[in-house]
Amino acid sequence: MTKPYSRLDLDQAVVLLVDHQAGLLSLVRDVDPDRFKNNVLAVADLAAFFRLPTILTTSFEEGPNGPIMPELKAKFPDAPFIARPGQINAWDNPDFVAAIKATGRRQLIIAGVVTEVCVAFPALSAIAEGYEVFVVTDASGTFNEAVREAAWSRMTAAGAQLMNWFAVACELQRDWRRDVEGLATLVSDHIPDYRNLITSYTALRGGMPASRPAA
Amino acid sequence: MTKPYSRLDLDQAVVLLVDHQAGLLSLVRDVDPDRFKNNVLAVADLAAFFRLPTILTTSFEEGPNGPIMPELKAKFPDAPFIARPGQINAWDNPDFVAAIKATGRRQLIIAGVVTEVCVAFPALSAIAEGYEVFVVTDASGTFNEAVREAAWSRMTAAGAQLMNWFAVACELQRDWRRDVEGLATLVSDHIPDYRNLITSYTALRGGMPASRPAA
Amino acid sequence: MTKPYSRLDLDQAVVLLVDHQAGLLSLVRDVDPDRFKNNVLAVADLAAFFRLPTILTTSFEEGPNGPIMPELKAKFPDAPFIARPGQINAWDNPDFVAAIKATGRRQLIIAGVVTEVCVAFPALSAIAEGYEVFVVTDASGTFNEAVREAAWSRMTAAGAQLMNWFAVACELQRDWRRDVEGLATLVSDHIPDYRNLITSYTALRGGMPASRPAA
Amino acid sequence: MTKPYSRLDLDQAVVLLVDHQAGLLSLVRDVDPDRFKNNVLAVADLAAFFRLPTILTTSFEEGPNGPIMPELKAKFPDAPFIARPGQINAWDNPDFVAAIKATGRRQLIIAGVVTEVCVAFPALSAIAEGYEVFVVTDASGTFNEAVREAAWSRMTAAGAQLMNWFAVACELQRDWRRDVEGLATLVSDHIPDYRNLITSYTALRGGMPASRPAA
Amino acid sequence: MTKPYSRLDLDQAVVLLVDHQAGLLSLVRDVDPDRFKNNVLAVADLAAFFRLPTILTTSFEEGPNGPIMPELKAKFPDAPFIARPGQINAWDNPDFVAAIKATGRRQLIIAGVVTEVCVAFPALSAIAEGYEVFVVTDASGTFNEAVREAAWSRMTAAGAQLMNWFAVACELQRDWRRDVEGLATLVSDHIPDYRNLITSYTALRGGMPASRPAA
Amino acid sequence: MTKPYSRLDLDQAVVLLVDHQAGLLSLVRDVDPDRFKNNVLAVADLAAFFRLPTILTTSFEEGPNGPIMPELKAKFPDAPFIARPGQINAWDNPDFVAAIKATGRRQLIIAGVVTEVCVAFPALSAIAEGYEVFVVTDASGTFNEAVREAAWSRMTAAGAQLMNWFAVACELQRDWRRDVEGLATLVSDHIPDYRNLITSYTALRGGMPASRPAA
Amino acid sequence: MTKPYSRLDLDQAVVLLVDHQAGLLSLVRDVDPDRFKNNVLAVADLAAFFRLPTILTTSFEEGPNGPIMPELKAKFPDAPFIARPGQINAWDNPDFVAAIKATGRRQLIIAGVVTEVCVAFPALSAIAEGYEVFVVTDASGTFNEAVREAAWSRMTAAGAQLMNWFAVACELQRDWRRDVEGLATLVSDHIPDYRNLITSYTALRGGMPASRPAA
Amino acid sequence: MTKPYSRLDLDQAVVLLVDHQAGLLSLVRDVDPDRFKNNVLAVADLAAFFRLPTILTTSFEEGPNGPIMPELKAKFPDAPFIARPGQINAWDNPDFVAAIKATGRRQLIIAGVVTEVCVAFPALSAIAEGYEVFVVTDASGTFNEAVREAAWSRMTAAGAQLMNWFAVACELQRDWRRDVEGLATLVSDHIPDYRNLITSYTALRGGMPASRPAA
Repeated sequence: MTKPYSRLDLDQAVVLLVDHQAGLLSLVRDVDPDRFKNNVLAVADLAAFFRLPTILTTSFEEGPNGPIMPELKAKFPDAPFIARPGQINAWDNPDFVAAIKATGRRQLIIAGVVTEVCVAFPALSAIAEGYEVFVVTDASGTFNEAVREAAWSRMTAAGAQLMNWFAVACELQRDWRRDVEGLATLVSDHIPDYRNLITSYTALRGGMPASRPAA
Repeated sequence: MTKPYSRLDLDQAVVLLVDHQAGLLSLVRDVDPDRFKNNVLAVADLAAFFRLPTILTTSFEEGPNGPIMPELKAKFPDAPFIARPGQINAWDNPDFVAAIKATGRRQLIIAGVVTEVCVAFPALSAIAEGYEVFVVTDASGTFNEAVREAAWSRMTAAGAQLMNWFAVACELQRDWRRDVEGLATLVSDHIPDYRNLITSYTALRGGMPASRPAA
Repeated sequence: MTKPYSRLDLDQAVVLLVDHQAGLLSLVRDVDPDRFKNNVLAVADLAAFFRLPTILTTSFEEGPNGPIMPELKAKFPDAPFIARPGQINAWDNPDFVAAIKATGRRQLIIAGVVTEVCVAFPALSAIAEGYEVFVVTDASGTFNEAVREAAWSRMTAAGAQLMNWFAVACELQRDWRRDVEGLATLVSDHIPDYRNLITSYTALRGGMPASRPAA
Repeated sequence: MTKPYSRLDLDQAVVLLVDHQAGLLSLVRDVDPDRFKNNVLAVADLAAFFRLPTILTTSFEEGPNGPIMPELKAKFPDAPFIARPGQINAWDNPDFVAAIKATGRRQLIIAGVVTEVCVAFPALSAIAEGYEVFVVTDASGTFNEAVREAAWSRMTAAGAQLMNWFAVACELQRDWRRDVEGLATLVSDHIPDYRNLITSYTALRGGMPASRPAA
Repeated sequence: MTKPYSRLDLDQAVVLLVDHQAGLLSLVRDVDPDRFKNNVLAVADLAAFFRLPTILTTSFEEGPNGPIMPELKAKFPDAPFIARPGQINAWDNPDFVAAIKATGRRQLIIAGVVTEVCVAFPALSAIAEGYEVFVVTDASGTFNEAVREAAWSRMTAAGAQLMNWFAVACELQRDWRRDVEGLATLVSDHIPDYRNLITSYTALRGGMPASRPAA
Repeated sequence: MTKPYSRLDLDQAVVLLVDHQAGLLSLVRDVDPDRFKNNVLAVADLAAFFRLPTILTTSFEEGPNGPIMPELKAKFPDAPFIARPGQINAWDNPDFVAAIKATGRRQLIIAGVVTEVCVAFPALSAIAEGYEVFVVTDASGTFNEAVREAAWSRMTAAGAQLMNWFAVACELQRDWRRDVEGLATLVSDHIPDYRNLITSYTALRGGMPASRPAA
Repeated sequence: MTKPYSRLDLDQAVVLLVDHQAGLLSLVRDVDPDRFKNNVLAVADLAAFFRLPTILTTSFEEGPNGPIMPELKAKFPDAPFIARPGQINAWDNPDFVAAIKATGRRQLIIAGVVTEVCVAFPALSAIAEGYEVFVVTDASGTFNEAVREAAWSRMTAAGAQLMNWFAVACELQRDWRRDVEGLATLVSDHIPDYRNLITSYTALRGGMPASRPAA
Repeated sequence: MTKPYSRLDLDQAVVLLVDHQAGLLSLVRDVDPDRFKNNVLAVADLAAFFRLPTILTTSFEEGPNGPIMPELKAKFPDAPFIARPGQINAWDNPDFVAAIKATGRRQLIIAGVVTEVCVAFPALSAIAEGYEVFVVTDASGTFNEAVREAAWSRMTAAGAQLMNWFAVACELQRDWRRDVEGLATLVSDHIPDYRNLITSYTALRGGMPASRPAA
């Protein structure tokens, strides 16, 4: 019955953001666009909040796939940015793998567009090389729900773990006391229901500052 | 066959934001919270962009209903703000009606929480007094889709017109040339798919500046 | 553009509960059973809270349709209870119509099972005789959503108004100050999200007593 | 009870295709993209089959909205093509209205992207000037189903008739004998289930040639 | 407020079954096929139970549209059967209209495939000639829900009433005592939940014979 | 990569129908009742067609759970019928297990109401004793889709195979030539779309008799 | 093929209720709130009915997360109640684990809010220490269905079993005769369809008392 | 943690198209027909583009199942075409297996109608003989989503990998530079959103020719 809990670790995790490009985003129809944009930005914010090494990659940016979401580039100005010249599976690009290896970390938190290709292919490759893979399901998107289910099935059969960004954040944080305001800001900025709770609480009790107004 | 087109007019429209309060927002389940928050902020931004007179009102802010969304208050620091002491139908509050009358305008653009009460009651009252009413459907929320349908049915039977915020913006703008950058910023900030189009376009052609990164 | 607002009035409204019987309830599949049971009990509670005259009626209780929900009978021990010997349209039963006429009221708040028959038939009959009809949509149920839509279409074309129980309660209450605790108890007992708001508020501020624990 | 049947007439109908542009199409999320593309091409094919005058218009083709679907331009090389310099409501563009008036026809068959703006605005304007308006609902698209419902509500309240392309084709055709092969080709090319019926029938009985293989 | 209740009358109603053909049925995707087949047979059974004059018509039976459902032909061996040589709108076929006129009745209960064509076209024609039209919504089918909604909108705007077969049966029956066993058999044969109620009731109390086992 | 194909075998399969009782059926809301009734009867027909040993069992028939569907009893008058006096897991009833053992077969085809209890419990027990278990998913029902998914997850983790009745029939039949008319009758009686295909085919070609009209 | 059936045992099971707090409940959107509240109270009632040791825990009750549902506290006044000072994973709190160990039991029945964090984290930790984990799926809630699916996937991959509260109750009860009235009360109080069956049965046969009226 | 990545290989893959017949296609209701037709043609196009050996098979073409989609036959005039005389599982047909063996390949890409029979049976047989099986989920169809889920569960438990056609294409292509125009044509012809991206890109930048207009 015993099975070890493969748990995200602040010292082992690296974030991979794959092909969140303006053109490819128009293919994503298994998530509402407002929610999807919010989720992707939440992953970026959590990577920054937890100071995780983060690697960006794109496919054919100068073609119809379009440029990377400008917010991602702005958020990680110094992160490795691998503009792949043609490889569909990012793992086939030596620079991408080298950037991961340079971190010395073994837990890959991966999100991308589209799920069954840009996420699943490197996920399967990484598992084959002994990495632990955590797919950020809600910051990865694809054509429709049935495609998503098939992609999830293929990845979980290989041992990938499926997590939404909120679970990733909570598993990394472990204890609210590590940085209450930091985590509160993250959830307030990206979970409207949580923001409302904080707004009401602050009005009544004060003490925990309401997050800054959203743009 | 002829029926006059009752069309929004920059000189006749006033925006009414009713009970977008942190507590009441947790009742809204006919729209995804990410999308709903975005839509409400879009209405606020369009009211500001078109310099429409805007009136805020709340119900029992100091109780469980909670405070108004801070972003709304921040956006309209000088707008009439009617904190109703108990009236459920805002139209039963004389200050609210007086604030509308003070604008001298006859077209009410109304959004609120929850749709069948905080929007429908004043909408029906206003129609009875000869106002034209335009309900911003996607910035109004309620318990579930069936409740929404019933609320829409009651309001349309009385003559209210149902519009999403994008239609409101377009009907007021009339011509892109009126202010191309202004409208582009509005849609880029609140329609992720449009933002992506602009991002790709700008990368290829330049000329129309991409909107600022979102928060 | 002017259209009079036909508004529920505490002195004109009467509540009609039609055929909420244990057997017939198994036919209802356009609403989740937990939600439906809650909505029907909410209508009963609001009728009691506002002291509205209430009339119960059933069809063939001793047959497969089954007995009325025991909670309704327990709630209104002295209300007129018309066990119809065979008429499908309750309005075809003279005792039912007589009970309504005895109240001297002109606004009928009606809910029942199934919507397109037990609600729609008496609603159409009542409108033909000059009554105002308000259908409590969420305390009325039927086979599926498409049947519901057709039933709503037929009733609204005849002039019936569609309202959920919460809108009915709010339109009758008009002002929270009329009886804050009474309305708070009603919504706390039947809207879990509202109950949560009150629970949190009470814990922080106190003053408004949390409703009693549910059964 | 009598109400005249406002019926599409081969001699009165004109087809208006509004803003089916490559960029704007990425905003359409109330219909699956495969189905939507098929429906738009079906309208184009029916316009050609019935030799209806057809008018194309676009908004800001050279900007992010993108060029018109190339198939539409290829289908109607000689049709009036009004590239609007800025007017959002095509009816505000004098060339567009002039092109309609030049046909001398009074029945407008209109489809476009997005429904609540590019379709609804000219529809309401045309009705106000006494035209009959028939909205091709399934060749018009928008952000989501709730936006579509609001747009349909606004247009039907003004007197527009909602029809899918198949109903339009059948109402124009009136009798299969008018051109059996023509109509069979149209439905075989755009309704896969119908194509299958024809394939099976042809294999068994022969006589009615199966349509050409799709691309 | 008064509006006459246009109510189905055993002496005025005639049933029109339009194009329920084996081929065309494969186009129906707004209802589950098990439910749809059951609903169509229920309409046939109710027509027989209430001894309503019934008229069958088909379009191109010998082509891909396929033959009428054999159960319908078997149920009404002596009913007028108009195999239309090409008219899409059955009302354009003089024999069809003559068969209706021969009944001397003014209330048309109509069902067919597909809703927006085979039902809507004759419905609109009949209303224009002063008939009352009752559409059996759940025994009429079409491509998808959005097409259905548009078709319903067009018909209700013209004055058609939307009813499911159960409402039709109940409005015609008026009183269970008219023929308890007859109506119980009808609902037991076509509403599984009702059949279960009767099965349980009969086992406990006896007296009302359970309907015969289904095929 | 090799994994043996555990395939249904006419000589090893036995059918278990668990608690398809009139009362319990009202709990089933993850399938439409028309479809569910049809599926259960299809399993009964396939058991008879393939002459598989079949075992019926019920729980508390004389109480609120109600009697077994009369059609099942009528179909298998001589089958073992175990009315369990109280055991919820049928496998806890020695007579039930003895009836299975008496067949000498090792493949259990099981369907029942509700899925997570009446199907899952004996399925898990049987697997623990070395039987192969095939769950007829579409003839098993429960409260809602989420409950179904959890039940399926628990059973598949233990090694149960999920199959709809059509797959069961096809895997047992193996070759249409084994009995073309028999399988055609089965699918014609329980798959309306297949019936339509046969109706159209027969009308055009003849030779394969259309199934008898449904009740 | 043999796999042991890991079955809930009255002497081994302990119930863990994690973070059912008034604020956090507003985050739950994968279940209707009426149903969710009912399910959580059902788990509480079943824990009491089966006299299972029960442990409550909360996260930051005095902050925006809000207090525990008052009904839970009232139901288990003497249960261990661990108000965690900051640990997100309850298993990281030594008092929580100590309370479990103090029971000497090895089967954990766990429910909580939100599923992927407050349920999944301790579930994975407990499995790693050799406990059997049974997740009460319908008394655990989260942001949306896709998040739920990912959370279920992660837990089942580790060996957790997914069960709704009704399956838990039935697996613990094993035989209706253990306490017929007790189980009947539980299901009557929390499954409206079952309550209806009992109401009808009691009216016809008597003997099994109908449960008390709900609040 | 390491698990080998079983990856599609241009030299090992063979495409099996099973029973895409005009009659059987009317059974498919888990995918919209427009999308399904498109997906099947996309698989055909990708097989041709990658020059993969392709094998066609049908069941009872001359009966109600109907002829193979004419487009498939036209696309692969020289491919092995096995018209099975009766075997339901194509793997039971020696010619079919021989055709596969003749290719010398070990990776089977399989699509068909219906999923749980025509795809699952040969998939399970092939896995038992040591082949790698890749199911093209979106070019395989069946009665409804629940049937599909059960079929997927059975196949994945045996080791089949689920992929949509786009993932298949991308995994075979590996690098855009292998043939940019070829892959661009494939996605432009079968993914309308991708076509739109290419249309817009081409208009702005030129260089990559837009695909030919669709039929």
